[in-house]
Amino acid sequence: MEQASIFPGRIRLGMVGGGEGAFIGAVHRHAARFDDRYELLAGALSSSAEASQRSGRALGLERIYDDYQQMATAESAREDGIEAVCIVTPNHMHAPVARAFLEAGMHVICDKPVTIHSEDARMLKALAEERGLLFAVTHNYSAYPMVRHAQQMVREGALGDIRVVQVQYAQDWLAAPLEQSGQKQAAWRTDPAKAGGGAIGDIGSHAWQLADTITGLRLESLAAQLSSFVPGRVIDDDVQVLLRYKGGARGMLWASQVAPGCTNELRIRVVGSAGGIEWAQEQPNELYWTPLGEPTRIVTRGSAAMNAAGARTSRIPAGHPEGYIDAFGALYSEIATHLLARRHGGDPGAAQFPTIDDGLRGVLFIEAVQASSRTGGCWTSMPD
Amino acid sequence: MEQASIFPGRIRLGMVGGGEGAFIGAVHRHAARFDDRYELLAGALSSSAEASQRSGRALGLERIYDDYQQMATAESAREDGIEAVCIVTPNHMHAPVARAFLEAGMHVICDKPVTIHSEDARMLKALAEERGLLFAVTHNYSAYPMVRHAQQMVREGALGDIRVVQVQYAQDWLAAPLEQSGQKQAAWRTDPAKAGGGAIGDIGSHAWQLADTITGLRLESLAAQLSSFVPGRVIDDDVQVLLRYKGGARGMLWASQVAPGCTNELRIRVVGSAGGIEWAQEQPNELYWTPLGEPTRIVTRGSAAMNAAGARTSRIPAGHPEGYIDAFGALYSEIATHLLARRHGGDPGAAQFPTIDDGLRGVLFIEAVQASSRTGGCWTSMPD
Amino acid sequence: MEQASIFPGRIRLGMVGGGEGAFIGAVHRHAARFDDRYELLAGALSSSAEASQRSGRALGLERIYDDYQQMATAESAREDGIEAVCIVTPNHMHAPVARAFLEAGMHVICDKPVTIHSEDARMLKALAEERGLLFAVTHNYSAYPMVRHAQQMVREGALGDIRVVQVQYAQDWLAAPLEQSGQKQAAWRTDPAKAGGGAIGDIGSHAWQLADTITGLRLESLAAQLSSFVPGRVIDDDVQVLLRYKGGARGMLWASQVAPGCTNELRIRVVGSAGGIEWAQEQPNELYWTPLGEPTRIVTRGSAAMNAAGARTSRIPAGHPEGYIDAFGALYSEIATHLLARRHGGDPGAAQFPTIDDGLRGVLFIEAVQASSRTGGCWTSMPD
Amino acid sequence: MEQASIFPGRIRLGMVGGGEGAFIGAVHRHAARFDDRYELLAGALSSSAEASQRSGRALGLERIYDDYQQMATAESAREDGIEAVCIVTPNHMHAPVARAFLEAGMHVICDKPVTIHSEDARMLKALAEERGLLFAVTHNYSAYPMVRHAQQMVREGALGDIRVVQVQYAQDWLAAPLEQSGQKQAAWRTDPAKAGGGAIGDIGSHAWQLADTITGLRLESLAAQLSSFVPGRVIDDDVQVLLRYKGGARGMLWASQVAPGCTNELRIRVVGSAGGIEWAQEQPNELYWTPLGEPTRIVTRGSAAMNAAGARTSRIPAGHPEGYIDAFGALYSEIATHLLARRHGGDPGAAQFPTIDDGLRGVLFIEAVQASSRTGGCWTSMPD
Repeated sequence: MEQASIFPGRIRLGMVGGGEGAFIGAVHRHAARFDDRYELLAGALSSSAEASQRSGRALGLERIYDDYQQMATAESAREDGIEAVCIVTPNHMHAPVARAFLEAGMHVICDKPVTIHSEDARMLKALAEERGLLFAVTHNYSAYPMVRHAQQMVREGALGDIRVVQVQYAQDWLAAPLEQSGQKQAAWRTDPAKAGGGAIGDIGSHAWQLADTITGLRLESLAAQLSSFVPGRVIDDDVQVLLRYKGGARGMLWASQVAPGCTNELRIRVVGSAGGIEWAQEQPNELYWTPLGEPTRIVTRGSAAMNAAGARTSRIPAGHPEGYIDAFGALYSEIATHLLARRHGGDPGAAQFPTIDDGLRGVLFIEAVQASSRTGGCWTSMPD
Repeated sequence: MEQASIFPGRIRLGMVGGGEGAFIGAVHRHAARFDDRYELLAGALSSSAEASQRSGRALGLERIYDDYQQMATAESAREDGIEAVCIVTPNHMHAPVARAFLEAGMHVICDKPVTIHSEDARMLKALAEERGLLFAVTHNYSAYPMVRHAQQMVREGALGDIRVVQVQYAQDWLAAPLEQSGQKQAAWRTDPAKAGGGAIGDIGSHAWQLADTITGLRLESLAAQLSSFVPGRVIDDDVQVLLRYKGGARGMLWASQVAPGCTNELRIRVVGSAGGIEWAQEQPNELYWTPLGEPTRIVTRGSAAMNAAGARTSRIPAGHPEGYIDAFGALYSEIATHLLARRHGGDPGAAQFPTIDDGLRGVLFIEAVQASSRTGGCWTSMPD
Repeated sequence: MEQASIFPGRIRLGMVGGGEGAFIGAVHRHAARFDDRYELLAGALSSSAEASQRSGRALGLERIYDDYQQMATAESAREDGIEAVCIVTPNHMHAPVARAFLEAGMHVICDKPVTIHSEDARMLKALAEERGLLFAVTHNYSAYPMVRHAQQMVREGALGDIRVVQVQYAQDWLAAPLEQSGQKQAAWRTDPAKAGGGAIGDIGSHAWQLADTITGLRLESLAAQLSSFVPGRVIDDDVQVLLRYKGGARGMLWASQVAPGCTNELRIRVVGSAGGIEWAQEQPNELYWTPLGEPTRIVTRGSAAMNAAGARTSRIPAGHPEGYIDAFGALYSEIATHLLARRHGGDPGAAQFPTIDDGLRGVLFIEAVQASSRTGGCWTSMPD
Repeated sequence: MEQASIFPGRIRLGMVGGGEGAFIGAVHRHAARFDDRYELLAGALSSSAEASQRSGRALGLERIYDDYQQMATAESAREDGIEAVCIVTPNHMHAPVARAFLEAGMHVICDKPVTIHSEDARMLKALAEERGLLFAVTHNYSAYPMVRHAQQMVREGALGDIRVVQVQYAQDWLAAPLEQSGQKQAAWRTDPAKAGGGAIGDIGSHAWQLADTITGLRLESLAAQLSSFVPGRVIDDDVQVLLRYKGGARGMLWASQVAPGCTNELRIRVVGSAGGIEWAQEQPNELYWTPLGEPTRIVTRGSAAMNAAGARTSRIPAGHPEGYIDAFGALYSEIATHLLARRHGGDPGAAQFPTIDDGLRGVLFIEAVQASSRTGGCWTSMPD
């Protein structure tokens, strides 16, 4: 991706959330630094002023703020203020923080699910459009080279008509009541007020988006059952969904946080009339591709068999595994290419990443799943 | 399994169906011969008398009949007549053939689904009980050693409370309209009058039974969508089901005959509060077992880690792969042990295999899936 | 393989060795029975008359002999005597037993290594030729369908010029001094007088033969180190060999009986100028085939991608795994086709199996490895 | 690794080599940037002044030099001059460049093999020691978390006595005469004057080092055959080696650049009296661990089963794959910890990485392989 930079300079970036005890903040910093396309200059890293200062100093940040409002105001007043903010707070804070920075005139890079309620997502979408600002959503798995490769294959018709989509995202980390131990990640992710949804929000939304980005299909309706298996848990830790896509394809989605044997098992199989593909996030450098009636091919990242979409986010030769941070970094670099093109008035080319449009659809998906489950699993239409 | 034989002699066996162009008949013959516990003596191998004679001669059969009625009558009149009949016809013939042989006083070994309509299965169950005859159903996958091992693990509580069951059986052989080419297997298996169900009957029933035998859980209700993806096909070639088990476990079942990339991909994952297991029929000698919080273990058939239930149907040392016919043969040997124990008035010990009870529940499952799908996928209760 | 039978009838078979406590005898019986091409009629199953009688009765054998000489004499005198003998004794008995039955006019099917000393193998070869009898050697791995497929690929030039052969056969069952526990298999297999070689004879010879049959290359010279890692063991339990083939290909062979993590891990990779293949016995239904510069293909047994040589020993549809006994049975059926063609004066067609020629070359390989190791690993030429 | 930083600040880094058309230079830059422990300030990135300037400008480098001598002189004269130089030139330039920077008082981070001739490596070792400077060698695979985990397992005796080491590093990128196409990487890597060795130097040295770092065993002697399979090639493209370790362990090493089917297949198996382990670089997040007599465990990076050595270079939760750049970055961070500890007079703790000592032993290994091969593969002792 070093070569992909056609515009000079780096994006001036700020971060909200991601302080002490956070997991995803450090990942975003690695990702932003990966291809040297960002400079992290400012932060309000924690909901407490004290923790925010301490976290910022530990990172050697130049400009540390007590809270995000102070940061939005101060940075917008500086000539060298940040151009974009990265939001990695718990989910319930995404909307107010994003709103503040959009109103302060800054681009937003926000973790998923973009909001808890779809009306907030609609508000943010309208606001970003009104201000002419970019609103990117970090569905990071969409930037894996073999996911991009799969997406191009579908677009080009290599699979024929899509018939079946099987997608799952299964983990084991909440199989016991970890939230009762005070572990910070578990605590907010199992609190409905902060997380909105449990398994469905945290990982089900990723599974949905992976199918969405690869197939380009849009959901018509679904039937879902949410479960809370761990005693004392007040949020779903497992979700199973039947899917009907517009145009006739059918699908199934399973997300679970209580599945021993699954570490971070995000997998997808797409079945079409002319062939099928299979990809698993834990072995992300390989895509299994079976043309109907022929042997399965193992298409390897970095090999001559990759198409342009896949090659775009691939960096190193085949057989040298790329991983989670590489793909997260690729997503950041795609966003940087877009932002630099805006800054310099150029064409971002094929730069591609999820935006508030995807984010909004994701929240609508979560809401539809929750609505179906509340009715005992009845079929529920997706709003347009 | 040579050692498992505690009673002398072989079962005198007849076969109905399984002549020219059949697939499963040859498999049953291999299976019956595997451990040398049966003698195949008689057959009505085809629905046409001429083909039946030709097929019987090709196999070197001693007693060849024009049709099954003639066979039932003649064999029951002989002192050295067959003791058991193996039924491997298309599904719609299972019920009349089984009835004829039960009425002639012979044990029945019948392919699945045991009947098309549950009332027929109930009739056969009543008849077998009334006559005191054995009615075995060849859900062959249940005899794989690692399936038996998994079953014992669940029974012993190694997985804790079962929470989630994910099972699939996906193939690709009907992804194109093979039935229009005159291929005999495809022709009857896509004919509703002969097959009853398509993917749901042919392979969905195996997937159901695999979950049933391993977990011992009973279904409470389900929501299902059947699809016929291939143009011109008048039977389902794909089925997706949400499952609710009594006691609170949840499940998903996918069966497809139109999935390039899947050859004969029968897989199951069972998730419990204390651990999870995963097994795939295409690599049947290994069971993946993950105790909660510990590394996954690869439990290998034939190794010291196998439990008694698994070891019972395992023959050769670890690393020497057993396969489909070995497991089918193990099922036949379990049935033989039972039949010989009956003949000699002994105790069959731990011999275990699906019976008409399982067969009936399987038909009820298929009917419930079809009923749910007809209502657009509404939740449908399983009858008791 | 049912269909492969073009000649009527079954081969009348006898067995020497394979009684109580034996592993491989039961496998040979399963294999002979698999396709219903043999009738096991006579046996001298143990070196003690009493055990021989007991073992024979347990199997329901018709004609049980106290020893092999008695059996050779008696069977040759009968009009319905056996046509072929299967020899599954410890290695040191292969030569005298085979000689006795050849001299009595019977075909021989002998386990490997065919003899301990190459002069004995030469003697048996001369004797079989002189008498016009078949001498088959049960290198069973050569009958796996994907091995046959690989062989045909090499013959047809799909791999271009062969450059490198990497083959290994690693097990763990002798990692501890099992022979000191009285386990019968371990006892004779670690006794130089009975086994001849340890790892090199028991499994190294299989690894050699697998490379030999797939590539058709002939060895020029080798350098080897034999090791006896387990304290108290007086025979090799690990062997490592560098290989030079005629024509310039190079290879490496590792065989070990002391490798935890390896159950029965016979694997081969053949590298050519136009592509490479990889196969592993523990997952025998798949061959990995990589044309130079293209993605790896997973060629599946039973699929449309199989060539004629592979299809010949394959029975059931793709995705229904065949295993060790299926392949062993295929070898027996190939031998039966040959023997029946002889009996009926017909053409055995493409029936193919290792013979005394392969057996002799195998013994010469073992002797060369032992000779090299004795000199500290110096390069040693293979005799022509 | 963010947390691992116990000393403030970043290392001021320069780079020699790694300009246009280079592969490994970009990797080193990614690695140095990964954990934000370095600032790349200066470079002489190419052997031509013009290309060096152009490459430096493309990277936005602050101080660009025409050649390395100029850079060494100028940087040593600045108060804010670089503290360490990273050398990523073709192999033949390692020695003169390293010498120049050591003499200018800077630490060296050098790619492998550290030199072509062992006398140069000895000279550099003496010089570094004399000047009290660090000389790190970037055997990057040694920094993978599961490699570290394996190393600690061996040190703690989990495997018992090491008996067998099987290591391979196979690629396919030079299976055709790529160097004749003008591809820059292929050109110098197949030029004996610039590369020293072919497969043995480029990847065989990595395979050797992987075994070296995990087992801690030292070689006693070896027998090797180098091959040049591709017509017209004047350097080895395949190497096969038998190994004898001090203390009695035996090993085999294969490295190949002409193996279709192998992309970057660096694998190792270590067999001990109490268990065995297996690791493959292409799936680096998993270590297979088999205690003798028990099922194989899949030990996953980031899981609770990791030991301290493995956890030290692991960053993100299990199931989120780390890859090649993550491990290369971990190596750089280990070196940074060491350099910062030196700068601040503190204790670097468990920071661990290969140094000139390992580099020298690696060159001696390469020379021994070349010497053995020249004698036709005779056993050759390793110098102490």
